[in-house]
Parts: sequence; structure tokens; C-alpha cells
Amino acid sequence: MSNCIVALDLEGVLSPEIWISVAEQTKIDELRLTTRDIANYDELMQHRLKILGQRNIKLSDIQNVIENLPLLEGAKEFLDELREFCQVVILSDTFAEFAKPIMKNLGYPTLFCHNLQIKDNKITGYKLRMKNQKQHAVEAFKSLNFKVFAAGDSYNDISMLKAADKACLFRAPDSVKTEFPHFKSVEEYRELMKEVKDFYYI
Amino acid sequence: MSNCIVALDLEGVLSPEIWISVAEQTKIDELRLTTRDIANYDELMQHRLKILGQRNIKLSDIQNVIENLPLLEGAKEFLDELREFCQVVILSDTFAEFAKPIMKNLGYPTLFCHNLQIKDNKITGYKLRMKNQKQHAVEAFKSLNFKVFAAGDSYNDISMLKAADKACLFRAPDSVKTEFPHFKSVEEYRELMKEVKDFYYI
Repeated sequence: MSNCIVALDLEGVLSPEIWISVAEQTKIDELRLTTRDIANYDELMQHRLKILGQRNIKLSDIQNVIENLPLLEGAKEFLDELREFCQVVILSDTFAEFAKPIMKNLGYPTLFCHNLQIKDNKITGYKLRMKNQKQHAVEAFKSLNFKVFAAGDSYNDISMLKAADKACLFRAPDSVKTEFPHFKSVEEYRELMKEVKDFYYI
Repeated sequence: MSNCIVALDLEGVLSPEIWISVAEQTKIDELRLTTRDIANYDELMQHRLKILGQRNIKLSDIQNVIENLPLLEGAKEFLDELREFCQVVILSDTFAEFAKPIMKNLGYPTLFCHNLQIKDNKITGYKLRMKNQKQHAVEAFKSLNFKVFAAGDSYNDISMLKAADKACLFRAPDSVKTEFPHFKSVEEYRELMKEVKDFYYI
């Protein structure tokens, strides 16, 4: 089945969680929370922006952390193999300003994400390109007669996983696995690749 | 403007016309016709398949030609630069079975195209993923709140160019330029890059 798109979440699937890495580097524990912990994305982002303002953390500080963030082990090889036989689009609720060095390390796969609002190196806000963009992207691909395989690890991936023709949780926390037991759940890239290939070579 | 997708035609924009190259290698002049010559795609493809059958040309023969087809000079550098600052999707009416070696040489950008029907190394037919897929893809990207820049050279690019927020003909034949004079028309990658950047950095 060659008219296939694999839609992948970024953080937790190919790269580490950006905000957790920022929390570790800056030693600010309050920045550790992710969509794994707070399902409401705007609530989570407002929380993050408040902390950044209070602690005087600039865009360039965060970009410096991301520059030095290695991909998850085996992520590049997994993605390279995938791109040789099917189309891949990364669907992420991160921001282009953060994602750029990660995309470079991944060999510039196509990325659909959001944008930050920046003034004088200070993150003043964020702009969602659209709400539920992951789900809408999968639906758009299906409307173009693609079959869609989706994989992610977090609450903000669930609507994308539900919209896809086949879906898989990858290294999801127990809370997500327990709440959505009907999704297949795998921990390793070779398992995820097998799921994709089982779908692709029907 | 970071929520931007550049939609590019493949043949004539990044790679040579596949069928013209096949015609040259096989010395069958009737295979030289492209969408530049026959606007009706199905008519063109039925013509090609008939010739291939008559001359006993197999899928692997064509794939061998494509394997050795160099990209247009400067195409890789152009695409690499583009992918560093915006999203790129190749919209082509070619077939995945033909495009694969070209995509490898381009560093696996995302490609939306069609598929051939193959039996015992013989091309028995083709399957359009959908009619007017280029136009529909641009419209889908716009429905996801992307701004779309499109570039192509042929009749089958016109509906995509019309659907885009900004469009540009690239190395189009005089017939296309004359028929669609309201589209900006450029001949060199540096000119095309300037058009994209003028659009992107509004």
C-alpha cells in the first residue's frame, strides 16, 4: 500500500521532551510538566510562560538547551528506514523556533507544528496554527486518499491516533496506556517498525 | 511567516522529465510527450503504456534509466536551503515506483504522487491517488492554516498554482507562459528562492 503516510509525534517518540530537558538544564522543576501531566495544552503553556518570565529565561536560553539535545537512541535510523519506503510527516505541538535544530538532526522531515511570539528574545506568547492540528492533519491526509498510520505517546496524540487508519502508542506513560487500552502500545523502534510494515504491506 | 508550505512540482523543477529521459535512452521518440504537450493526463498515460507494451519495455528498464538520472543542476542545493527555513512538500503526478531514486538523491523530502499497477515487472496500468491531487493538497494545507507557495512548469501544475496563496512558474515552456501570463515566471533557482523568501518574510 504505497499511498501511505506515517504521522509521528516528535517529543518522546524521536527526541526527548524539550521542556523536561529545559527543566533539567535550568534546574527549575516546575518546567518538568508536559502534556503527559496536564492534558489541557493552553493551561500547560501559560504555566510555562509564567515560569519563564519569573525566572528571566529567554528564547536563546531554551534554544541553547535544544541545540545540545541528542535524539533518542535509534530515532534517526528508524526515521531513515521509514522514509525509504513511505511518506512521513511529523505532527508536533512544539514550536518551529524550538524544533529547528532537532529537524536538522533528523534530516529535515516535514514538520507541522506551531509558532512562538517573540519580542527582544523574550517569549511573550504562542500561536497555535490551529486547535487539534494533529487530528485535522490526519483527516486532511485521509481526504487526499492516503492511508494514515499514527504514533505518539501523550494525551495530545490521542485524537490523532483515533483519526488514523492504524495507530500505536510509543513509550507512553502508564497513565495513557491505562486510559486508552484499545491502542496497541510498543516500547522499541523495531516493534514500531513492525507495526508500520504490517500496515503498509497489507 | 513560519506557518508556510512550499509545494513544488518534481519533474522540470527539481529533476529532468522522466519520460523524456526514457525516450532518449530507449530511442523511442513517441515517449517524449509530457503534460507540457498533452494537457489530458489520462490520454497521455494511456499513450505511454501502449508504447511500452508494444516495445516490450519493463518497469525495471525504466527504473534503470531513472537510477542514472542526475538532478537538475542546483536543485539539491535549492531544496536544502528551502528545507532549512520552511516546510516543503513535492506534489507530482509521477509514480512512487519511478520517484524513489530521485527522492533518495533529494534527501527524502515528503512526496505526494501516484502508483503504478505492476505485474511480473510489466506496467499494466496506473492508479491516480486522486484526480487534481496537487490542487487538493494545496487546499488541504490551507485548511490546516498554512500559507502555501507553489511552483511548477506544466499544465498539470496550473490548478495547484491557482489554489496557492502565491505561485510561480519555473522554467515553463512558452506555451504555458503565454496561456497563463498572470503568473510570475522565473528561470533560475536564485530567482525562485527570492520569490519564496519575499512570500515568507512578509
